[in-house]
Amino acid sequence: MGIQELSQGVLPGTISLVFGHPDPAILPVDGLRAATEAVLCSPQARLALQYGPQQGTPALIDYLLKKLNREEGLGLTGDNLMLVAGSVQAVDMIARLYAGHDGVVLVEGPTYHEALHVFRDHSVDLRPVAIDGDGIVIEALAAQLTLLQREGKPPRLLYTIPNFQNPSGVTMTAARRRAVLELAREHGFLIVEDDVYRDLVFEGEVPPSFYALSGGQGVLRIGSFSKIVAPGLRLGWLIAAPEHIQRCVNCGTSQMGGGANPFTAHIVAEYCRAGHLEPHIARLREVYLRRRDVTLAALERRMPPGVTWTRPRGGFFVWLTLPEGMSIEPLREAAREQGVLFVPGTGFFAGGGGQRNLRLAFSFVPPDEIERGVEILAQVIGEMMGQGI
Amino acid sequence: MGIQELSQGVLPGTISLVFGHPDPAILPVDGLRAATEAVLCSPQARLALQYGPQQGTPALIDYLLKKLNREEGLGLTGDNLMLVAGSVQAVDMIARLYAGHDGVVLVEGPTYHEALHVFRDHSVDLRPVAIDGDGIVIEALAAQLTLLQREGKPPRLLYTIPNFQNPSGVTMTAARRRAVLELAREHGFLIVEDDVYRDLVFEGEVPPSFYALSGGQGVLRIGSFSKIVAPGLRLGWLIAAPEHIQRCVNCGTSQMGGGANPFTAHIVAEYCRAGHLEPHIARLREVYLRRRDVTLAALERRMPPGVTWTRPRGGFFVWLTLPEGMSIEPLREAAREQGVLFVPGTGFFAGGGGQRNLRLAFSFVPPDEIERGVEILAQVIGEMMGQGI
Repeated sequence: MGIQELSQGVLPGTISLVFGHPDPAILPVDGLRAATEAVLCSPQARLALQYGPQQGTPALIDYLLKKLNREEGLGLTGDNLMLVAGSVQAVDMIARLYAGHDGVVLVEGPTYHEALHVFRDHSVDLRPVAIDGDGIVIEALAAQLTLLQREGKPPRLLYTIPNFQNPSGVTMTAARRRAVLELAREHGFLIVEDDVYRDLVFEGEVPPSFYALSGGQGVLRIGSFSKIVAPGLRLGWLIAAPEHIQRCVNCGTSQMGGGANPFTAHIVAEYCRAGHLEPHIARLREVYLRRRDVTLAALERRMPPGVTWTRPRGGFFVWLTLPEGMSIEPLREAAREQGVLFVPGTGFFAGGGGQRNLRLAFSFVPPDEIERGVEILAQVIGEMMGQGI
Repeated sequence: MGIQELSQGVLPGTISLVFGHPDPAILPVDGLRAATEAVLCSPQARLALQYGPQQGTPALIDYLLKKLNREEGLGLTGDNLMLVAGSVQAVDMIARLYAGHDGVVLVEGPTYHEALHVFRDHSVDLRPVAIDGDGIVIEALAAQLTLLQREGKPPRLLYTIPNFQNPSGVTMTAARRRAVLELAREHGFLIVEDDVYRDLVFEGEVPPSFYALSGGQGVLRIGSFSKIVAPGLRLGWLIAAPEHIQRCVNCGTSQMGGGANPFTAHIVAEYCRAGHLEPHIARLREVYLRRRDVTLAALERRMPPGVTWTRPRGGFFVWLTLPEGMSIEPLREAAREQGVLFVPGTGFFAGGGGQRNLRLAFSFVPPDEIERGVEILAQVIGEMMGQGI
C-alpha cells in the first residue's frame, strides 16, 4: 500500500506520515559500501553470487545466533535459525506450510495490513482478537477460542507483533504473553511472533519474547534487517524449534531458490563482522526516539480534547483514536487537501473496525515535518469537530 | 536438492554432474563489482537500499522491455513485465494466486523437480503429461484433458519449460507449442512458461515462445538472471498480459515486500546499462557449448550400446535413458562409489517414472571433469549390463 508512491515521489510540499520505512537519510550507505567491496574483492565473491545453502549464508547465521544468545540468553543452536528474504518471505512461507486451506489464523485487531494481505492470498480463515494498550486482550482470545471450538475449527496459527506493534505502537506485557502461551498450548496452535521492531527500543526493557517464554516450543519468531540496516537488501531470519526450521529449509521455495539472498547475506554478514551493526542500531534508537518525542509533544500540544493516542516505547508508529461521531474517511480527504497523508485505521482489521483510527509513522520524515504534519492534522480535526463532522 | 552439498563442498576427487548451476569460475565478478560501486557511490544508493516499487526497479524493467522487444519483437509495454526474486518467486506466486486449493496443474513428465516441490507445497493436484524429443506429446495432453473433463476438474495451469528443458534438455517445436496453445484456449487453462534457459542457445534458433505465439494472452512467462548473470542476486522477471501483472503486483507478498530485491535490481540494471550483459551471454554460450560437445562426444565414445540420450541445443542438461531391465538406484550407488554423482530420473516425474533415466548437468564442472565423469559412468553401466543388473 502506497509504497509505489515512494519512488514516484510524494508531491512536493506533502508530508507523508504513511510509510513505516526507515528514513533514507539514515541508511548506512558507507558501511554497506565497505562491506560490499570486501565481499566482492575476496574469494567469497563467487560463493555470494552462487546459489547458497537453503538454510542461509553460514556467516550471517553464526552472527545472529551469537547476537540473540548474548542479548536474550536464548540458547539457540545452528538448528534453530534460518535466513529469509525479509519478514514477508517468512510470513508467506508459514502461511503456505502451516495454515492449511481455509485453516484458521488468529490475528490481532488491529494488525499489520500487509500481513493480512499475505494471509488472505492463502485463503485462510482470519479471525481477529482485540488488543488494548497491553497487547492481546486475554478474554477476547479466550472467547474467540471457545467460539472456534464450538465451530470445530481449531486455529492453526496466531500471528502477533508483540513489540511496538504495527500499527498501534503497543507492546504486549510479559503477563499477557504468558497467558497467550498457555492458551496456545491448551488449544494447540502455533504462535507466529513478528518481532521486527525489537531492536528499536527507546525506553525500558523489551519484555521476553514468546520464543523465550515458551522455551522455544510452538513459536516461530521472525526478525528482519529491514528496520535496522536496510529494507532493499531483503533479509531477515526465522527462529524456531529444529523441526520447524527443518520443515522450512526443506520446503519447495527454499530448495528451488537456494537460500535467502546469498549476495546480500554475505554483505550483511561482513557489515556485522566489521562491527557496524551495533553502533548503527544505537544511532537509530536516538534518531527514532527524537522523532517519537516530537510526535508525542506535537500531539499533546495541538490535538483537540477527545483525541487519544498510544505512547510507543519503540518502533515506528503512533495510533490515534478520534472522538466518537467522527470518522476517518472525511478526515483523510481533508488532511490530504492540506498536504498531510496517513493510513486510515480500517485496513488494519481483519473483521471490521478502525473507523475512528489512524496510523502515524514517525520513521520516514524528519522531525520538523512530523511537527508540521501533526499541527495540520490537529487543525483539520479541530475544524471537523467544530463542524460536527 | 543437493544444493547444500555445494557450499559444504563435494568430496575431493568427486565429479558432480548434479548441479544445474553456473560454473562459479565464470560468474561475472568484475562487471558486478563495477556496477555495485557505481550504484553505491551515486544518489541512487538510497533508493537501492530502500523498499522499491512493487513492480520492480524501473531502470531494470526498462532494460528488459527493450531487450525482449528488440530480440523477439514482443511489443511489450510497461504493463507487461514485473521483476521477481528469481524464478522460484514467480512459480510460487503463480501457484498461490492461480492454482487454487486442490486445483489441477499440468506438468511435463519429466519436469524440474523443485518446481514440482513448490507446487506440492500448495497442495495442488499435479497431473503429468508425457514429453518426447519434440516437447509435450499432444495426444497425451489431449488424453489428460479428456480425463479431467470427465472428472469435472478443468486444469488451471500448465507448467512447461519449453527450451532446453530441465531435466531433459529437450526443446519443444513451434508446431507443438501451437497445438498446446490451442488446447489451452479450448480448455481455459493458463500456460506458465518457465523460460530461464532461452538465452543459452548454442545451435539454431529458439522457437517463438508461448507468449509470442499467443499474442501475450493466457501465458505467464518467467525469465531469470540466475543462468545469465548470477543466481546469488535472486532476480528474474515475469511477462504477461497487464491484468496478470497487475494481479501479481497487487498481491500480498509484492505489497509487503516492496518489490523484488531492490538492491540487486539496481546493480543488475547498472551492469546491463554499462553493456556487460550481451558480451557475457555470448561468452557463456561458448563455454556451455564446449561443455555440451564434450559431454556428447564422451557419451558417443564410451556408452555401451542400448544407452540413449538427448542432444540439447542449449541450456545445462543431458538426459540419459538406460536399456530395459536396468534401474537407476543400483547405478547411482555404484557410480557414487566411483566418485561420480548425478540426479536419478525418478524425482522429475509427478506421477511415477524415470526409473531408467538420469540427468547429467554439464554447466557446473569443467570439460575435463565432465569427460572423466562420463567415462566412469559408462564403465559402471557397462559392468552392470555385463552382470545383468
